[in-house]
Parts: sequence; structure tokens; C-alpha cells
Amino acid sequence: MTLDYIKEKAKQIDEKLEQVIDQLAGVPVLLRESMKYSLLAGGKRIRPVLVLATVEALNGDTEKAFPFACAIEMIHTYSLIHDDLPSMDNDDYRRGKLTNHKKFSEGTAILAGDALLTEAFGLIAKGAKETQLSAAIALTMIEEGARFAGARGMIAGQVYDLQSENQKISLSELENIHRLKTGDLMVYAIRMGAYIAGANQSTLQGLTEFGYGLGLAFQIQDDILDVIGDQSKLGKPVGSDQENHKSTYPVLLGLEEAKQKLSLCIKEAKEKIIGFPELKPQRLLEIADYLILRDR
Amino acid sequence: MTLDYIKEKAKQIDEKLEQVIDQLAGVPVLLRESMKYSLLAGGKRIRPVLVLATVEALNGDTEKAFPFACAIEMIHTYSLIHDDLPSMDNDDYRRGKLTNHKKFSEGTAILAGDALLTEAFGLIAKGAKETQLSAAIALTMIEEGARFAGARGMIAGQVYDLQSENQKISLSELENIHRLKTGDLMVYAIRMGAYIAGANQSTLQGLTEFGYGLGLAFQIQDDILDVIGDQSKLGKPVGSDQENHKSTYPVLLGLEEAKQKLSLCIKEAKEKIIGFPELKPQRLLEIADYLILRDR
Repeated sequence: MTLDYIKEKAKQIDEKLEQVIDQLAGVPVLLRESMKYSLLAGGKRIRPVLVLATVEALNGDTEKAFPFACAIEMIHTYSLIHDDLPSMDNDDYRRGKLTNHKKFSEGTAILAGDALLTEAFGLIAKGAKETQLSAAIALTMIEEGARFAGARGMIAGQVYDLQSENQKISLSELENIHRLKTGDLMVYAIRMGAYIAGANQSTLQGLTEFGYGLGLAFQIQDDILDVIGDQSKLGKPVGSDQENHKSTYPVLLGLEEAKQKLSLCIKEAKEKIIGFPELKPQRLLEIADYLILRDR
Repeated sequence: MTLDYIKEKAKQIDEKLEQVIDQLAGVPVLLRESMKYSLLAGGKRIRPVLVLATVEALNGDTEKAFPFACAIEMIHTYSLIHDDLPSMDNDDYRRGKLTNHKKFSEGTAILAGDALLTEAFGLIAKGAKETQLSAAIALTMIEEGARFAGARGMIAGQVYDLQSENQKISLSELENIHRLKTGDLMVYAIRMGAYIAGANQSTLQGLTEFGYGLGLAFQIQDDILDVIGDQSKLGKPVGSDQENHKSTYPVLLGLEEAKQKLSLCIKEAKEKIIGFPELKPQRLLEIADYLILRDR
């Protein structure tokens, strides 16, 4: 049922994402193709769904949330395209398809990523005008976009991740990488939803802490799936972390303790959004539970 | 004297750019170093100077223009870092120094570029708040940032440029590449200045046309300098266009006709900003003249 909700919203987001790219006038054919190839590759759409679900939990208008939900998926997709490059994680497959640089070329993949990032910020600005979101709030969202997706957030996480390759790192270092690389963008998604629906500061704070817990849980589950997952569902080879000598939760803690950490992490995250008068947390709690059960 | 103006403004911009990066909290040491390496590599600062000169020409407050001027230089620098990569133009030197990926690594260079682009948008949003620029105007600037620097502008130019490698292209194709790759960001700089100073629509239009002329002239001069320039002043090898079989103005037109085209282009550009009551064009006209005389 939660899964149905996620699937339904993901389908709407897919449609909007395609429109967003198709509506850009004067994009070279190859560039548009490359942008759409990765953007419409059937991702789980967790981040945009979190935007929508947060707006809904705050009794806001989800219709007005789509441009922002699309923008965050564009940022996420750009980061995947660049992370997959030979000079980074050097991955050939993503979501069961060739990675962007394998399908096109390295140069095209870099530019498609650049373009998705650039157009994401443009979409936030355009979306704010179209949905009559307060311009001041839109500027805060854009500032936070740089904060969470930039040199102090997601990109910092990728830098630390590259630096930790083939090195044994501590649990707290691993957690810091995930907090930056995965947590920051999840938090940004949830905060976007909170801004759209006009949440107060204390609710915003609770949602932020929920987001970090969710991001960490999401990443632990990713690590676990790399050990016990089904390649055909994941769309990428399992066991690749071990092959690449990556420090992961199962490696550092053992599989059973990693699973326990995951449960605890979800439990603690859920507690962060209980007790705010303006927030009906049910849907967000269900999404948190779903993230443990997911098999892809 | 125009050169003195450009040098003085460039020095102020250098200081502000360093502050912008230093003020970002929590940036990994390597990433900050890589961002600063390219950002503070002694560029000509033509684009940010154009922002300031346009504000000045419209009798606006240049002090308030610095965040936006810095943002555009960050976008320009990111584009250079990515353009220099092995999978794009594969350049080892830029401004007399090793290119970013040669000094650091490809992965770091890609991420430093991503970070500069991301933080540029954040800076526009933050700068608007700090200088009390109207939030609606700031959103327009951000939308235009995506328009001029993204898939419909600068990045489109780079895609067409890569596609034209080792191919004979026509003069109009060459002009289209330059319009996108160089013109759009120059135009964006000038329009930023116009927005900061509150220019009216007709002045904005004149300035935009001036910007496209200037961008084209700038690029023709670049092509000419690659034939007759001084390597020690340019900080990169001359003759590289010919070596790479690139279609350039001197190649397509011959050197003398390229020089004539340059003069005509500057002359026509200058005419575009004459006759607007709110605009004192003197400084902008001088900058246009200087761009022909430059030797680096």
C-alpha cells in the first residue's frame, strides 16, 4: 500500500520529468537524449516522493510541489552520472542499463550531468514563479540546494568516498560519508516539502533529523542488498562492494549487526516526527518502514 | 586606462572570490584546494568586470554587484575545468598552469567543477538576500543562469563544439557555436548588471545585443591570437587550433578577413548601446575597444 503510493507518485514524477526536459527549447539532440536516458531510467524516485509526502503530511498542495520534486531528482541523477564515470566509481551498469558514459561517451555524460544540475536550479526558480511560491522561500531553497548538494554536502561526501577507496575506514568515518553523500539530499528533499507547505521551525527541525536517519538507513540497506540482494531486481551486480574492498556496514559490523543497526536507525528516525501539531506523520512513517523492506 | 579599470576591478573580484570559497564551512581540504586552484588562477575576469561596468553605466550600486559578479566567474571557471578534461578538449595547460585534472586528478577536477557550479547558484540566492535585491529579480537571474549556462546555452555550445571536432564546418555553424559557448555567458553577465541596476526592457535588449557582439568579437580575437599571439602572454601554446584541425575564423576566412570581421563586429556591437537615456555607455564602449587590443 505504501509501495502503491510510491509507485503512483513515481509515475507522476516520471511524466513531469519528461515534460521538463522536452519543454527546454534549443537543446542539441544528443544532449537531450543523454539527459533523458539517465533521468528516465526507472529510478525509485525516493527523493521526489519524499518532497510530495512531506507536503501532504503538512496538509499542503502537492500539485504545487512537482517542479521542486523534479528538480531534486535532476540533481540526484546528475550525481549518479558523474559518480559512475571511469575517473570516479567506474561503473558500467546502473538500474540494469549501461551507464551514461558507456551508452554515449564520457564527454557527453559529463555535459549531461552538468546540464541536469544547471537546469535543476532554473526549474526551482521557474517553478516558484509558476506555483506562486514566495520568492524569498524559493531563494532559501536555492541556497539550501547549494548547501546540501554542493561542496559542503553531497559533493563533499563523494570526495571523501573517493579518498577512502581501498582503505579501511572507521564506522564514524563511514557514517560521515553517508550523511553527506546520501543523507544531505534526502534531508534537502524533506526540507523542500516543509518549505512548500510552510512548516514552522520546530517541525522543520524534526523533519530534518528524520531525513538524516532515513538517509543513513537507506544507505545501510544498500550495503546489505549488495551482500544478499537479487541482481535481477537491483539491476547491478551484487558483491561489488566486497570486490572493490569498500568499507560497508556489513563489512565493518557483520551482516546481522548491520541489520540490527538498520532497524534501530529507522526506529529512531520515526520518533523524530512524532508530536508536531501541524504534521500528520503516517505516510512518512510508512515510507520509512518500506525502505527496510525494499529489495531494489 | 580601460586596462587600469579592468585590472583594478579584477583585483577586487579576486579578493571576493577567495572570500567566497573560504567562507564555505565543511569543504574537504582537497576539494577546496582544487576549486581555488582554478578559480584564482589569474583569469582576465572579463565577465565579472562586465557585470560591474554595466551596473556603473546604469548608475547602480557596484558594491552590491559583487556576489553576482563572483557567481558568473565561478560558472565560467567550472566550464573551463570541465572543457579541459581528457574526454573533452584534453588540454594540459591553462593560463600558464597545469589544468585542474593534471594538477589533481580527473575525478577531483570533475567534482571541483560541479561544486563551483552548484555554489554559484547558492551565491546568487545568498547575495540577493545580503544586498537586498528583490527576490523576484534574483529568481529571474537564476532562471536566466540555467537558460544561458545550461542545456540551451553554454553547454549546448560545448556539445556542438565536440561534435564538430575534425570536421569542416561552415561560418554560420562556427558562429552558432561561439554564440552559445561564449556569447551566452557574456550576455548573462551584462544582463545581470542590468537587472541589478534596474534597467528597463528596451535598455536590456540593447545591452543583450551588445553582449552577443562582444562575445563573438572576443572569440574571433581568441582565434586570431592562436595564430599570431605570444605564448608567454597567453599561457598556452599557440597554433593548437591548427594542430587540432579546428575550424576557426582565420582558417575559414584567412587572417586579414578575420581581423576585418573583428573590427566590424566590435563597431556594430558598440552601436547597440547608443541612445538609451538611462545608460552612460562610455566604459562599456572602452571595454569593447580593449577586447580587440588585448594580447592575452
